[in-house]
Amino acid sequence: MITRINHIAIVVADLDEALKTYQDGLGLTLRKRMVMPEQEVEIAFLPAGESVIELIQPITPDSGVAKYLAKRGEGLHHICLEVDDVQVTMEELAARDMQLLSETPIRAAEGHGVFVHPKSSHGVLLEFLQPYGEEA
Amino acid sequence: MITRINHIAIVVADLDEALKTYQDGLGLTLRKRMVMPEQEVEIAFLPAGESVIELIQPITPDSGVAKYLAKRGEGLHHICLEVDDVQVTMEELAARDMQLLSETPIRAAEGHGVFVHPKSSHGVLLEFLQPYGEEA
Repeated sequence: MITRINHIAIVVADLDEALKTYQDGLGLTLRKRMVMPEQEVEIAFLPAGESVIELIQPITPDSGVAKYLAKRGEGLHHICLEVDDVQVTMEELAARDMQLLSETPIRAAEGHGVFVHPKSSHGVLLEFLQPYGEEA
Repeated sequence: MITRINHIAIVVADLDEALKTYQDGLGLTLRKRMVMPEQEVEIAFLPAGESVIELIQPITPDSGVAKYLAKRGEGLHHICLEVDDVQVTMEELAARDMQLLSETPIRAAEGHGVFVHPKSSHGVLLEFLQPYGEEA
């Protein structure tokens, strides 16, 4: 069911500054950047093999990501595991008593995803995602 | 220079309990587990595509990982990016003013690696690793 790590999300305070570091300092390449108004964030996508490192900057003070940044500072936010079928995955996770953060898949930058509460996964915010274009 | 995400490391308090969750709850598969006496940890390796999720439990109270767990609780610890040549990578990183945690590569479970201080990478502990068997 899990085919790969789709992305690793890192919360940053200033996307321009972080991109300088991740490109010029660490040697990654920017594929694209986009504003996601619904999530109140701007995201930059830097591929690493079959996965992507996503730098996420909140663009309002009230989003979940903004509050995370204010409380914990910059750093790792979540891991996203890619699956073939997010609906089936949700049913399997719920049947195994994993606590999900939504009752239906939510629309993300890369596909439809569902988050597992960190309480269910030893402190890690985990997303399961079915990419767009691969829906049954 | 960066070929893939080699692994994502997650610190856990009890490896047996965490493995139950990551296998039976989240659907990952255990490839192997091993004690690393030098690092004072036990590690379980769960593949996800070309990458591996590593669950790390400290086995002494004094290691860096044990202190991390005591201070921050369970959760994401670091990302490891795979490179062809860790020596060249170290020189490049140093030339770009990235702060490294060692002056020479250290021997890890999967290869020779070097860590970049989170201060240099927007709060993320990053490892660059050249796997064993791919040394020049």
